[in-house]
Amino acid sequence: MRTYLECIPCFFKQALEAARLAGANQRMQKRVLDEVAKTLPVFSFTSSPVEMGGIIHRLIKKITGKDDPFKKIKKRSNQLALLFYPELKKKVSNANDKLLMALELAITGNIIDYGVNNSLNLDRELKRIIEKENSKRRNKAIFNYSEFKSVLKKTRTIVYLADNAGETVFDRILIEEIKEIDKNKKIIYTVKEKPVINDALIKDAYECGIDKIADVISCGLDTPGTILSLCSKEFLKIYKEADMVISKGQGNFEAFSDRKKQVFFLFIAKCPVVARDVGCNVGDINLLYIGGNRYGRK
Amino acid sequence: MRTYLECIPCFFKQALEAARLAGANQRMQKRVLDEVAKTLPVFSFTSSPVEMGGIIHRLIKKITGKDDPFKKIKKRSNQLALLFYPELKKKVSNANDKLLMALELAITGNIIDYGVNNSLNLDRELKRIIEKENSKRRNKAIFNYSEFKSVLKKTRTIVYLADNAGETVFDRILIEEIKEIDKNKKIIYTVKEKPVINDALIKDAYECGIDKIADVISCGLDTPGTILSLCSKEFLKIYKEADMVISKGQGNFEAFSDRKKQVFFLFIAKCPVVARDVGCNVGDINLLYIGGNRYGRK
Repeated sequence: MRTYLECIPCFFKQALEAARLAGANQRMQKRVLDEVAKTLPVFSFTSSPVEMGGIIHRLIKKITGKDDPFKKIKKRSNQLALLFYPELKKKVSNANDKLLMALELAITGNIIDYGVNNSLNLDRELKRIIEKENSKRRNKAIFNYSEFKSVLKKTRTIVYLADNAGETVFDRILIEEIKEIDKNKKIIYTVKEKPVINDALIKDAYECGIDKIADVISCGLDTPGTILSLCSKEFLKIYKEADMVISKGQGNFEAFSDRKKQVFFLFIAKCPVVARDVGCNVGDINLLYIGGNRYGRK
Repeated sequence: MRTYLECIPCFFKQALEAARLAGANQRMQKRVLDEVAKTLPVFSFTSSPVEMGGIIHRLIKKITGKDDPFKKIKKRSNQLALLFYPELKKKVSNANDKLLMALELAITGNIIDYGVNNSLNLDRELKRIIEKENSKRRNKAIFNYSEFKSVLKKTRTIVYLADNAGETVFDRILIEEIKEIDKNKKIIYTVKEKPVINDALIKDAYECGIDKIADVISCGLDTPGTILSLCSKEFLKIYKEADMVISKGQGNFEAFSDRKKQVFFLFIAKCPVVARDVGCNVGDINLLYIGGNRYGRK
């Protein structure tokens, strides 16, 4: 997705919120905003908003002098989500359609986000997710479940693009369900190389037990979304083996594009610009299929 | 009021919305935002946000090549508000406390604003204002009505700082009520010198019939709030005669300060930063008294 003019106020809002969460003092916060302002006139609007996200979070790290400003938040998210793991498993095992339930939970787990909405009461929100009938938040128009099942059936190797720490536990639920259906499917769980906001790193995947059921690798990036053209050679080598991509989160929806693969975007639309681009409402849980050239989507 | 870091995302939001309302094309909108970005690192945060408002709206005028981009909006607001005039008069004449009702209406008229919230359905909003019991929106803590009555009694000359076009009709209701109490009170109705957003100009005051009951003058500015130190000599000469100031709108609350006079701020808090500064909720109607050095407020 390209960057829209409406993204600009949001860049500053996110930069300020993230700088504060990262413990920046007033002077540092102002410096972050000034540097974002200086970047704006030279930033290409054909780029994804995620590239500006990368710039913002590199600035925050540089200016606060903290290599991983969201370390504690990520740890807390992992721990909290793990507490919910047994309940999530029960919800899947009690469901009529286990795969559908696991999918819905994996998408709603995308609520764990400090990039767009930091004021979240995570514990309360997770309880709400688990209690609530997810199907009510499901976007009817953009919930390509039958396509998902059909592509999954024919797929041997899946690249799973992770989003946030903590959300990883919800990803584990889905991956375990996929393995339940066919234990021979190979799943490559892909995280970020370096810290950016609360995005999952290899450490987080291990903490949440993903390594027991999938290969965990890094895409080589420190942007809050997977920009394929910028990924490491090591990742791209492994990536090309896969025929199906499960892409988690709004950041990956904004950043990721590959017309040659069967791609499913699992995300909650968190801002009006993305919601407009997708054709849904803010807060909807989406399962969007972009299969090969079928939709010709960029 | 000084500028806070939270104002920064809002500067860009307002610049974009105003540029669009002013009919700027995409390229012009981007140019406005880039110029705001270039100004940011050199903008002094001890200044009022209104000074940045002035910069933004000068940019929009320059880049769109339109001297008065909100001309039509202002004309429409005046016409619409004038249609409500008889109903507003009736509401005052039926009230137990006519001055209080006129005051409440003058403050709620401050809802006519395109600077902070452009998506307003004005007609619907005005109906709601007139039908609704204003007292419910009144901020109990910040509604210094007894002080208003007492200062008004002792005052001969009032400077009335206007805010938006259309709102002028609501101001007329209050001024007429003040004149009803004492026809000898002199009221100097002060508007902006040059167009800035939908702020009232001399033309708007005349269109709304203010000239029949008050002297109409300009403060010499083109900022969306009256920064006393920047006002014209002509205005300041007249201004000094007054002992009471009635200041309308959030812009004037942000910009205006004079410890030597009896100042009453009549405004709806439209943003969380101002609400926090005042100690009220967004949407509250406030009548805030800053009398001489009494509160030592800046």
